[in-house]
Amino acid sequence: MTAPLIAISMGDPAGIGPEIVSQVFRRRPEWSRHCVVFGDVACLRRAAEVTGGLQPLAVLERPADASAVPAGAMPVCPLEGLQTVPAWGQIHAAAGRAAAQAIERGAQAALAGEVAALVTAPIHKEALAAAGIAHPGHTEYLQALAARHLGVSLPQLPVRMMLSSPVLNTVLVSIHVSLREAIERVTVSNVLETVQIAHRHWTAIRRQPHCRIAVAGLNPHAGEGGLFGREEIDFIAPAVALARQEGIDVQGPFAPDTVYMKAREGAFDVVIAMYHDQGLIPVKYLGLEHGVNTTLGLPFVRTSPDHGTAFDIAGTGRADPSSLIAAIEAAQASVQ
Amino acid sequence: MTAPLIAISMGDPAGIGPEIVSQVFRRRPEWSRHCVVFGDVACLRRAAEVTGGLQPLAVLERPADASAVPAGAMPVCPLEGLQTVPAWGQIHAAAGRAAAQAIERGAQAALAGEVAALVTAPIHKEALAAAGIAHPGHTEYLQALAARHLGVSLPQLPVRMMLSSPVLNTVLVSIHVSLREAIERVTVSNVLETVQIAHRHWTAIRRQPHCRIAVAGLNPHAGEGGLFGREEIDFIAPAVALARQEGIDVQGPFAPDTVYMKAREGAFDVVIAMYHDQGLIPVKYLGLEHGVNTTLGLPFVRTSPDHGTAFDIAGTGRADPSSLIAAIEAAQASVQ
Repeated sequence: MTAPLIAISMGDPAGIGPEIVSQVFRRRPEWSRHCVVFGDVACLRRAAEVTGGLQPLAVLERPADASAVPAGAMPVCPLEGLQTVPAWGQIHAAAGRAAAQAIERGAQAALAGEVAALVTAPIHKEALAAAGIAHPGHTEYLQALAARHLGVSLPQLPVRMMLSSPVLNTVLVSIHVSLREAIERVTVSNVLETVQIAHRHWTAIRRQPHCRIAVAGLNPHAGEGGLFGREEIDFIAPAVALARQEGIDVQGPFAPDTVYMKAREGAFDVVIAMYHDQGLIPVKYLGLEHGVNTTLGLPFVRTSPDHGTAFDIAGTGRADPSSLIAAIEAAQASVQ
Repeated sequence: MTAPLIAISMGDPAGIGPEIVSQVFRRRPEWSRHCVVFGDVACLRRAAEVTGGLQPLAVLERPADASAVPAGAMPVCPLEGLQTVPAWGQIHAAAGRAAAQAIERGAQAALAGEVAALVTAPIHKEALAAAGIAHPGHTEYLQALAARHLGVSLPQLPVRMMLSSPVLNTVLVSIHVSLREAIERVTVSNVLETVQIAHRHWTAIRRQPHCRIAVAGLNPHAGEGGLFGREEIDFIAPAVALARQEGIDVQGPFAPDTVYMKAREGAFDVVIAMYHDQGLIPVKYLGLEHGVNTTLGLPFVRTSPDHGTAFDIAGTGRADPSSLIAAIEAAQASVQ
């Protein structure tokens, strides 16, 4: 049996994306036949030099050609190409455009069934904005691409971001919005939809018989009976009650500062977080090297490392590919 | 040299407070001469039965009499007394009143110099509210008592809560307010004041020559250059700049989801958190048993365990006194 093919988008070429992609094939040379990188050839060549040189690039016409790539080489489906290779560690509109093109090409390959899953190296949101891309991050961008492909509206294809470490999974009600806006997004329908998407991911994609879900509160101590905010009473508890009526094993709202420890100790499979940092602080606090980001709700599997472009060390060869490797492994496990 | 005397307030008598106080003197019998409990005699007797019986109470007229208490006994400065001992695990106005009286008596002893520090067992904020106490928690309550004693207004005695684990210290801009209100509290003066209070605590109370302070952002990715919120640009960065002009070693704002890991790895002595759960999630995530809460800015040292009343296990004898013991040790270390 042939392992399913995984697409990797190179990320922002001024960041650590191309370097950690190069490192993947140094650490896992057997993956050269099972992965295909969507990226700019010149940028990937420069990254290979940074990570130790002597790494051939195999430029492919189509993803399936990866099957003939020698171990340790980088299998690349090339982009149209940048005019110049952008300087490391800086925001460039051209780099943002190239990163966006890599995402689009990878997503198209996944939507067309040419690859089984998409793993995305980190992009820089300001570079994306400088390139005129309206989407604040991968998740929103991929949702728009998939909705267009399926001919549905965005509300008909709700997606959520899940962050995972080996001991904790957390699915976020909202992600790249201000904290002020995140509070507005805590509605009965948004919380209920998040619980439903997490439940479907566990039962349909992971094919688990059961999923134990905990829902965090929004306010300190989950509002402590309405003393410090009413969102738990007005929105979160009603959403939990509706999900339970659908037969979902969900409890909450719990105090945000203790629910993650309960989940880590094994009481729950997944915690629903009310905003970005509520979920990301505990996942990242134990160390970044094994964090994986999964987009739930798309018509294909998409994972990514849970770190950014690390402009401060881009081009030094010091970037750690562990989280990208963990993301590829998570994608492989989901589609096998 | 005699060790300084530490006052312990019993906490809400329907919660685990009295039990863990009783356990302290079973685990550290030598502390019977160095601590004094402000609490209700009947409630503390019931707690001693729950934790194994056969623990004498030494009822004292004044704190200094603790010096003659035999090892393992509970040294108690009694409250006026409850009419009835409240049932375990329930909200009672009478229990809230008794918990409040224990705090007031302990604080008075500290303000009068009869004890060197105050360690507070957990209270239940709804019970406190049911008793008509307007303060949402210990920190605000002790601030009001100290300001009244000193004859100053509350704004003249700014205090902040610090949460500590063995690897992380975090000082919070705001605590027991809704997340919506917490955002409003992120102002230049509140952030600057928090940095100043943390710096003074390190240099004046802990007598350290230097304090490396990190300031977290409010929004995801610290706003990512204004894309997801402007509080970092408008309030937090200006506060950091003003503190640096005063010679304080402070940096930020940093992305909230990675700054705690940097601090845990040793890059900073303390992280300034913009709201309750931003700081408490990482401190609690590694386990509650060693967490300590310190109030910074009061005219006396005050610490407490970082857990609540745990009504679900109150009266079972299963409550773990480790965090209360760590709080007493932290208070002892601060006043020696």
